[in-house]
Amino acid sequence: MPERMVVIGADAGGMSAASEARRRRSPDDLEIVAFERGNFTSYSACGIPYWIGGLVDEVDELIVRKPATFRDDFRIGVHLHHEVTGLDLDRREVVVRDLSDGGRERRERFDILVYAAGAVPVRPDWARTDAGGVFGVQTLDDGAALRAWLDRDPAPRQAVVIGGGYIGVEMAEAMIQRGLAVTLIEQGSEPMSTVDPDMGAMVRDAMVRLGIDVRTGVEVGELLTRDGRVRAVGTSIGEFPADVVVLGLGVRPNTALAAAAGLPIGPTGGIQIDLRAKVVGTDRIWAAGDCVETIHRVTGRPVNVPLGTHANKQGRVAGINIGGGYARFPGVIGTAVTKVCDLEVGRTGALEPEAAAVGYDFITVIVESTNRAGYFPGSESMHVKLIAERHTGTLLGAQIVGRSDAAKRIDALAVALWNQMTVEEMAGLDLGYAPPYSPVWDPVLIAARRAADKLRSMDC
Amino acid sequence: MPERMVVIGADAGGMSAASEARRRRSPDDLEIVAFERGNFTSYSACGIPYWIGGLVDEVDELIVRKPATFRDDFRIGVHLHHEVTGLDLDRREVVVRDLSDGGRERRERFDILVYAAGAVPVRPDWARTDAGGVFGVQTLDDGAALRAWLDRDPAPRQAVVIGGGYIGVEMAEAMIQRGLAVTLIEQGSEPMSTVDPDMGAMVRDAMVRLGIDVRTGVEVGELLTRDGRVRAVGTSIGEFPADVVVLGLGVRPNTALAAAAGLPIGPTGGIQIDLRAKVVGTDRIWAAGDCVETIHRVTGRPVNVPLGTHANKQGRVAGINIGGGYARFPGVIGTAVTKVCDLEVGRTGALEPEAAAVGYDFITVIVESTNRAGYFPGSESMHVKLIAERHTGTLLGAQIVGRSDAAKRIDALAVALWNQMTVEEMAGLDLGYAPPYSPVWDPVLIAARRAADKLRSMDC
Repeated sequence: MPERMVVIGADAGGMSAASEARRRRSPDDLEIVAFERGNFTSYSACGIPYWIGGLVDEVDELIVRKPATFRDDFRIGVHLHHEVTGLDLDRREVVVRDLSDGGRERRERFDILVYAAGAVPVRPDWARTDAGGVFGVQTLDDGAALRAWLDRDPAPRQAVVIGGGYIGVEMAEAMIQRGLAVTLIEQGSEPMSTVDPDMGAMVRDAMVRLGIDVRTGVEVGELLTRDGRVRAVGTSIGEFPADVVVLGLGVRPNTALAAAAGLPIGPTGGIQIDLRAKVVGTDRIWAAGDCVETIHRVTGRPVNVPLGTHANKQGRVAGINIGGGYARFPGVIGTAVTKVCDLEVGRTGALEPEAAAVGYDFITVIVESTNRAGYFPGSESMHVKLIAERHTGTLLGAQIVGRSDAAKRIDALAVALWNQMTVEEMAGLDLGYAPPYSPVWDPVLIAARRAADKLRSMDC
Repeated sequence: MPERMVVIGADAGGMSAASEARRRRSPDDLEIVAFERGNFTSYSACGIPYWIGGLVDEVDELIVRKPATFRDDFRIGVHLHHEVTGLDLDRREVVVRDLSDGGRERRERFDILVYAAGAVPVRPDWARTDAGGVFGVQTLDDGAALRAWLDRDPAPRQAVVIGGGYIGVEMAEAMIQRGLAVTLIEQGSEPMSTVDPDMGAMVRDAMVRLGIDVRTGVEVGELLTRDGRVRAVGTSIGEFPADVVVLGLGVRPNTALAAAAGLPIGPTGGIQIDLRAKVVGTDRIWAAGDCVETIHRVTGRPVNVPLGTHANKQGRVAGINIGGGYARFPGVIGTAVTKVCDLEVGRTGALEPEAAAVGYDFITVIVESTNRAGYFPGSESMHVKLIAERHTGTLLGAQIVGRSDAAKRIDALAVALWNQMTVEEMAGLDLGYAPPYSPVWDPVLIAARRAADKLRSMDC
């Protein structure tokens, strides 16, 4: 009689865990069943803005693997339209509601549980998603609903995007590409709140050049409707008419079931897991993805970073361990890249306020250079910002804004930061140089050298 | 009375040292004079193939700084057409021949010497550069002569490039772009000898697709001439007709003067310097650039890697130390990137034979992935090869061949290798993910994960 593993949530975290466990344990040894309340499994939520904007044609392209693939190739059962509504740790059972069968509930036993319920969108009181024309963009279902609304006749003409994080910025661009007039409303001082305001200001300029009406320092108070449809967004500086409103307000860990069952929830609202992705204080209960919290290696603080790349890695770690191997998830450093209008944006490590909040004393430098040798065709400008600890020179954070070949340069900085390199050490790094790819001093090296010079001149 | 610093060779290494020293010591304290036998200073030799191929229009674009800039902005004297022909360490003098003044010689004293004489091209006995139509591509003067030859009327139609390293491959492409028929002759089993043959085979395919006649495993025996002009290349498999022959046979350190003066020359033929770029066993004599040898951090062996990026860094280190600061050059790991036809090629660390030669026991993996999310427009194939120590999993080398956004991914691998990360640690790295820039598992991470899986399955 095989053991039975139940997975709550059939997306990146859960299905990575399932696949890795299966590679190590055969169906005779371990039965694996996943329950997913939605219509899809293992899809790219990050691709939704490009599907809305028309860069990606078909929703199928965003789906990495379908239930049939898991069934046939991995012998993993995936049940869509099945919502897990209860978790009984003592009896080791979950309560599952079959949404395609009138909501009939049944109990399913497990020996091993993987909790990978993902995240739920942040919805302030004013966010009336019941009103026509108001959409989130968290799931493919959200995306499908928004696309249907945009295809109406007459088509909506004025969009308001609320929230200037990377999803909001990407959605503003997608709406412009679809021919709508777009206003972006953000609470903070600049859009792209994932970078410091000095870098965010460059993003604002690019958005404005594209025709987006960017409003920052603005609080949303209410959504105004007529006949059940949104007609305007009421804010601290007045009303903005809207035929369609997109909410890009971020997400929070989906942990209601876990909390009710007594699983430990950390200060970020995420489930607490150990290095091997096992839920703290439990036996054979694992968690992965947007619903967990992990450690930020620069600040040392717990963080919840809802990104598919972490979900996949945490799922892999859980699956290896479930399968009898050894793997650990080493935490994150906040790396992210975004394409916004004609700019590429990358970041890693701590922003200035994040570094300051935990007590770091640091210096910053911003350098401008180019993606290629200055004489090489297609050479374009790029800004690199570094944040380094004053006393030691250790890299704490990096941000890049440029036109091309910029965003992924953050990876070299991320690996340097991961290894706690100093900016002086970094200035000696052996990075790739050829005229089509970089000036003889890569922008990353120029920034490191400048930071090292600054620290030298301060004699610290 | 200021001290006097003499620089032999006014290119990357020498002028970086001069500029950094000047930043720390004023003209009242340190006079700086550089002697350069050529027509140019501080130029991008790596840009020559693109100038020949027509991607770069004017030779001036390749010149980073001119003597007037050094004079006016840095108060550094640069004397072009001045060849240093003697070095007298006891009297602390150099003998300088003014090539623009009939070769008149004079002696110049120094307190501090920077030896940055660069490299000289490898010229086997058969390499008759006195024959018309036979060219190297090491200097701007070489490039100008080749361009003039290509512009003759009637224009040459058949080119033979000898040597399949990155310069040879770039020159073959440049000649195709100029409309010539091109044969590339290489001794080894594949072109692009800077990567392992399994990766080099992909480069061969790309070259053949572009119409280049690639001949490998071929020894050149002689250049055949008629009326003082080259007419064919004689090889181990017969004659190849040629109106123009380009020699891409590499370079060796230009150390004749240094050796004659008794400066220490290492096993690679390069000058031996210490961590701070001071010539071993000397006082106040420094060296930088293509003429020195340094340590390869993976093999632990001395190497001579003639690349502008190292020359600049070594020069910076020398200049900081000359200026009274402290800096050291940490060695190299063999990182290089090249654009060849429609491919991008990157490498870092040791190739398989290099790793084997020093006794490493290792495994290799090659994975194929894409530069962007599979569904994102412009998604293209990329191969990543990793070499990892079997017992520890430590990364020893990496190679990438892909169509776009491939080459500079080597930087993240280079920084990981620099920090002696294991492939399992690397699989947990927090790299940038967004659909326009990578699949949810970046190709770099996929390769690391695959290597970690392979090591796990070998139970070592």
